[in-house]
Amino acid sequence: MPEFEPNTVLSRKEYEVVGKRPFRHDGADKVTGKARYGADITLPGLLHGKVLRSPHAHAWIRDIDTRAALEVEGVRAVITSADFGDIDAFDQTWAWQCRNILARERVFYKGHGVAAVATTSAQAAEEALECIQVTYEELPAVFDGEQAMSGTVPELHEGLQELMDPEAEEPWPANVGNRYEFELGDPDAGFSEADVIVENDIVTKAVHQGYIEPHSGTAMWHEDGRLTIWSSSQGHFSVRDFTAKVVGLPPSQVRAVPLEIGGGFGAKLRTYMEPLAALLARHAGAPVKVTMSRVEVFEATGPASGTHITVKLGAKSDGRLTAATARLMFEAGWFPGSSVMGGARNMFSPYDIPNGYIEAWDVVVNRPKSGAYRAPGTPQAAFCMETALDELAEKLEIDPLELRLKNCAREGTRRIAGPALPKVGFVDVLEAARDHEHYQTAPEPLRDGYFRGRGVASGFWGNGSGPSSALALVQADGTVSLSEGSPDIGGSRTAVAQQFAEVLHLPIENVHPKVVDTDSIGVTSNTGGSGVAFKTGIAACSAAEDVIEQMRQRAALIWELDKADGVEFVDGVFCDREGDRQLSFREIAARQPATGGAIVGRAGVNPGGAGPALATHIVDVEVDTDTGKVTILRYTSVQDAGKAIHPSYVEGQIQGGAAQGVGWALNEEYYTDDSGRMLNSSFLDYRMPTSLDLPMLDTVIVEVANPNHPFGVRGVGEVPIVPPMAAVANAIHDAVGVRLNELPMSPPVVQAAIAAADDEDARQSGLAAG
Amino acid sequence: MPEFEPNTVLSRKEYEVVGKRPFRHDGADKVTGKARYGADITLPGLLHGKVLRSPHAHAWIRDIDTRAALEVEGVRAVITSADFGDIDAFDQTWAWQCRNILARERVFYKGHGVAAVATTSAQAAEEALECIQVTYEELPAVFDGEQAMSGTVPELHEGLQELMDPEAEEPWPANVGNRYEFELGDPDAGFSEADVIVENDIVTKAVHQGYIEPHSGTAMWHEDGRLTIWSSSQGHFSVRDFTAKVVGLPPSQVRAVPLEIGGGFGAKLRTYMEPLAALLARHAGAPVKVTMSRVEVFEATGPASGTHITVKLGAKSDGRLTAATARLMFEAGWFPGSSVMGGARNMFSPYDIPNGYIEAWDVVVNRPKSGAYRAPGTPQAAFCMETALDELAEKLEIDPLELRLKNCAREGTRRIAGPALPKVGFVDVLEAARDHEHYQTAPEPLRDGYFRGRGVASGFWGNGSGPSSALALVQADGTVSLSEGSPDIGGSRTAVAQQFAEVLHLPIENVHPKVVDTDSIGVTSNTGGSGVAFKTGIAACSAAEDVIEQMRQRAALIWELDKADGVEFVDGVFCDREGDRQLSFREIAARQPATGGAIVGRAGVNPGGAGPALATHIVDVEVDTDTGKVTILRYTSVQDAGKAIHPSYVEGQIQGGAAQGVGWALNEEYYTDDSGRMLNSSFLDYRMPTSLDLPMLDTVIVEVANPNHPFGVRGVGEVPIVPPMAAVANAIHDAVGVRLNELPMSPPVVQAAIAAADDEDARQSGLAAG
Repeated sequence: MPEFEPNTVLSRKEYEVVGKRPFRHDGADKVTGKARYGADITLPGLLHGKVLRSPHAHAWIRDIDTRAALEVEGVRAVITSADFGDIDAFDQTWAWQCRNILARERVFYKGHGVAAVATTSAQAAEEALECIQVTYEELPAVFDGEQAMSGTVPELHEGLQELMDPEAEEPWPANVGNRYEFELGDPDAGFSEADVIVENDIVTKAVHQGYIEPHSGTAMWHEDGRLTIWSSSQGHFSVRDFTAKVVGLPPSQVRAVPLEIGGGFGAKLRTYMEPLAALLARHAGAPVKVTMSRVEVFEATGPASGTHITVKLGAKSDGRLTAATARLMFEAGWFPGSSVMGGARNMFSPYDIPNGYIEAWDVVVNRPKSGAYRAPGTPQAAFCMETALDELAEKLEIDPLELRLKNCAREGTRRIAGPALPKVGFVDVLEAARDHEHYQTAPEPLRDGYFRGRGVASGFWGNGSGPSSALALVQADGTVSLSEGSPDIGGSRTAVAQQFAEVLHLPIENVHPKVVDTDSIGVTSNTGGSGVAFKTGIAACSAAEDVIEQMRQRAALIWELDKADGVEFVDGVFCDREGDRQLSFREIAARQPATGGAIVGRAGVNPGGAGPALATHIVDVEVDTDTGKVTILRYTSVQDAGKAIHPSYVEGQIQGGAAQGVGWALNEEYYTDDSGRMLNSSFLDYRMPTSLDLPMLDTVIVEVANPNHPFGVRGVGEVPIVPPMAAVANAIHDAVGVRLNELPMSPPVVQAAIAAADDEDARQSGLAAG
Repeated sequence: MPEFEPNTVLSRKEYEVVGKRPFRHDGADKVTGKARYGADITLPGLLHGKVLRSPHAHAWIRDIDTRAALEVEGVRAVITSADFGDIDAFDQTWAWQCRNILARERVFYKGHGVAAVATTSAQAAEEALECIQVTYEELPAVFDGEQAMSGTVPELHEGLQELMDPEAEEPWPANVGNRYEFELGDPDAGFSEADVIVENDIVTKAVHQGYIEPHSGTAMWHEDGRLTIWSSSQGHFSVRDFTAKVVGLPPSQVRAVPLEIGGGFGAKLRTYMEPLAALLARHAGAPVKVTMSRVEVFEATGPASGTHITVKLGAKSDGRLTAATARLMFEAGWFPGSSVMGGARNMFSPYDIPNGYIEAWDVVVNRPKSGAYRAPGTPQAAFCMETALDELAEKLEIDPLELRLKNCAREGTRRIAGPALPKVGFVDVLEAARDHEHYQTAPEPLRDGYFRGRGVASGFWGNGSGPSSALALVQADGTVSLSEGSPDIGGSRTAVAQQFAEVLHLPIENVHPKVVDTDSIGVTSNTGGSGVAFKTGIAACSAAEDVIEQMRQRAALIWELDKADGVEFVDGVFCDREGDRQLSFREIAARQPATGGAIVGRAGVNPGGAGPALATHIVDVEVDTDTGKVTILRYTSVQDAGKAIHPSYVEGQIQGGAAQGVGWALNEEYYTDDSGRMLNSSFLDYRMPTSLDLPMLDTVIVEVANPNHPFGVRGVGEVPIVPPMAAVANAIHDAVGVRLNELPMSPPVVQAAIAAADDEDARQSGLAAG
């Protein structure tokens, strides 16, 4: 089949709307509390839904007795996964997804849903849950991926390899859900050529995305058998499709209405509450809303995987990399499908390495199913790679940015995992970082008794695309109502509207963007992969072109020309090629009824060519060697945005990614006891950075246009979370001389590492003295 | 400018969906109470709005003191028309419309709005209204149109003629708002040729449309200055435009959301509550809902005009009409703009009359502004014309249907008022009526002591069109979400979906129609003029053609053909002209993402050529000469629907029109006292026919295709209310020998007429005897 025809780059040099910083259309409603988020929907007769969750990390469910619960006053429905119908008729992944929201034969993690109730009050729901009698038969649980693979613990799922890859040539270790392998050139030969070899071995813990808004789903059945669901998500088409499957309807019988989203970062790509609300509503004969508590969000949604990653790098003495290998192990949670592939594909992608090999393992453990978290899989792998590079730079006595420049990937560079690179702006990013005043100003190594240091690290994210749609309704007053199907996480409503406005030379105030339900817009893939400004931007441009085409026809009609060919659209004005007549957008808009009815621009697109993003971060830290506390003193992120449609939002994304990366670097982790119970499942105990923990996060936007987008857009949202952990680790090393190889680098970890290094120094000194 | 290109008639003889009777898509939600009507919307913090209304029919407002009302607990806002801003900057009609919802200098009718409040409870609203002190200075009022024109009463508006028609050659009588005149041929010569001349002089009272659902409007302001309004109406684009004007916004800043409508019949073409809700909401800083009571609906919305109409007909002894003249006087209410033009244009249109003259007067009186009511203006005029024709038939001893057939208008017939007729089916309708078993079975003149009789009458309605839009979103499962902007009064959602489905050969269940807000669909003119099945049907067909075109392109892409020309759409399947490959709608739908994204069909149209509708009704009545009560024994309506898309809905429209016509004929009227106060402003006292008052209303659908619509559709909703009054009057005459010349023909009126006729008979007998 022919390839999707790439979009042409608009030749206009100076943009009127793109690159400006207009007010966001949804801003006023959001800051004044008028915007409606997932749990804000109310309906007449709405019932409260609530989920009973497993106290065990692994157990057979021998019986669920709901009779007593049904007797509780105010209880309208009680469901278990038996109410899902024949979920095993679905493919295996769907069947697992179903079991993920309500367990069937077994519970696989602490907090796994077991039953759900719908009641007339929140109190009745609590009471009803207490009355559900579940008979469990506990099973041994495994929480660590390496242990799960070791053959020393039972298999979580029988015949997993047979199920996941029946054609695999070699047997996998126990509890492996997926194995991936990539090779380029001859790694052994590459290492033979090397003058220096560096090895690194890191461990990271599971971390949560930490969005403010808990998951919530509301469902109402119509009497003709159709279902409406309201929720906030990163893709209401996905919510619709999953819910439809669980309740046994074709997707078109379900209407998913998007509400505003209070943070997602990848975690709201998966659906939890909506199918339960739908089933409860069906049983109760009334609408139902189910909203998670914060504890439920931590225990029963999908955090980023805990990982174990090793890397080996070989280089010539001039710094040129000759070979790189890696082994990645990601804990998938209780069924296969971690983001290990993200780590594998991206960790070496910033660099031109002629020889390489990567082996990646996806391992099941008794933890909640891991989920996507901003550049999924890549921050952990980059932590390993970019700290190894720092060590290499140290060994070779090359400036770490110069080392990266020396090995910098460019257009056409072959990757160990993935196709050769298209046009990228990594050279520009590295040069901008190197030349930045921050980097040019040497850090003060010690001040007020605290050790200070600087670290740098880079990151790569491929960026995604997918089907997207736009509808542009031209109003009689010359404004446009612009519908799209991409939930707006980071200001994309305005960024998409800007692109639309630019094509038509409209003031941004005249475009009113909105995110509409699954019955009101063509299929639109999830808000993920940093894809919205790219794919939905292209859809908006395409819808704008469709408007122009129709307006040319209207102008031809008004001027009594035979064909629309005689009408040109020049700088926002429709002109008669032959004569000197002109019509503005507004004039044609006003004459729609008289010239044949409404003008509606439409676009359904699925564009390829989302350009990869590259970033380099510079961080200065201060380490309290007594407590191990690390303070961020200064932070600068440099990133190629292709073209920053709305620079403030690009900066916001970069700052947000950096802030989350710092939290992941220094404090965040799933802290569990031996039984798999999370001990820090509240925002008081799960330590995310606040504004008091961070300085102003500086940003530098580099613009190396993506040739596959009319304005050159590259996705910007994910890559800024890739460099921070390694940059901070490298800065700590610069400050106190220790290399940390685990996340988080929390005060006790840092303190212990410093102490161990001091002991080693003492031992070495002792040896030397002895 | 070139004309709109007329649609071609689809050549398919047998339709798959059109002409069938599928379940209506909105049926289940409506019969189970799930559907949301105007007053069903709830919002957090919603306030109650309520309007203070004038006790006087005509008075100066000298002062409105709202201070005490503002002190009432729970009062959040009090507004008067002073809050409208500079409404006189609008054109005169808009300014009157504004003053119609809240009076400014004067109140012009009993029930005229004077002020409005928004409160936290309904009780507080009542209390607040009582605390508003309005100082009135009463003025003489005029309620009768002929009296208003007589020069014996003061002028309601100074300089009205200067305002309405500054170019008029002759001065109008006082209180005339509009004068229309039509002429064809030489009426005097026509009457000279005539062998028989008949004259008729009738009076009708104002009647209400009697919809079940009162007017309601809900408004919420957004923090960015935009406004959302919810209401049920016959056109939310009109609601939007009027509200925007009153609150001083461009239309695009207002989003009007349509809710289900519990009857409109023309009366919900005008906006009352929404601008008040919007202004109250702005003042209160919270959303406001204002809902009319039944008394308010009667006193402050727009009933059909009271009228005085005369007609004179001349005919040869063989029945051929030679001339017709008419004078029509319609009471417009307090400002100009009755539907007198409807009566003038349509009353003679069923007939081929070579010479004619019509003079029509639109007269202001101290009554609520009259509104549209089903075939506006035409029932009253047809009552006069069709009873005159009956008298002519009697005089000439010609069967009344044969008389009509003899003078029947056909394609090309010149009209006294209006352009020559396009293709119409009046001959077919008359022949079908004449040949119907009902008409072929002679009525029993007397039974059980009651007199029985039969009447027939015909009616014409031109039908309307206007801009309309459709959007068709193709879902991956092969179903379609079809958006339109036409509020669904009589089942048009399904009728429009059927047309869409027919073009694409889809099962009707696979098309999900919905009526969407003004931000979600192109401009769509009101649901009125019996235009929706025509104009929105054409929009749906056009959107379907757009889908076909895109699917042909997708098929070409899949088959690697250079051009979509190689793909044909035959009987619902896309075929490769060269090879023998095929793809179904569903298959292409499933492959949308892989072939370039979503497929969306769009259409904005403004089609001309809505074909006129003609109807003939046959009614048998029984008259109780003691009480004057008239009972409908049998009723048959014959009507040309062009093509009945959904015959059940066409039948429902015909039955509904006939039932309302019978109510208008026999019982309904605004019964007012000398001060202009309506004495029967409740459904207990305003006597509409119930199911107990009517027999089964039989219908016969004739299909003479309208060449300007793909399936031949003519509007069907309005013409059935045109013949009933005359048909019933003719039947009463047939039963008891008296000709009634006023509406309603209520028991006292009928009884008095019979008594007068008896007296006359007695007098004649006395004279004869003497």
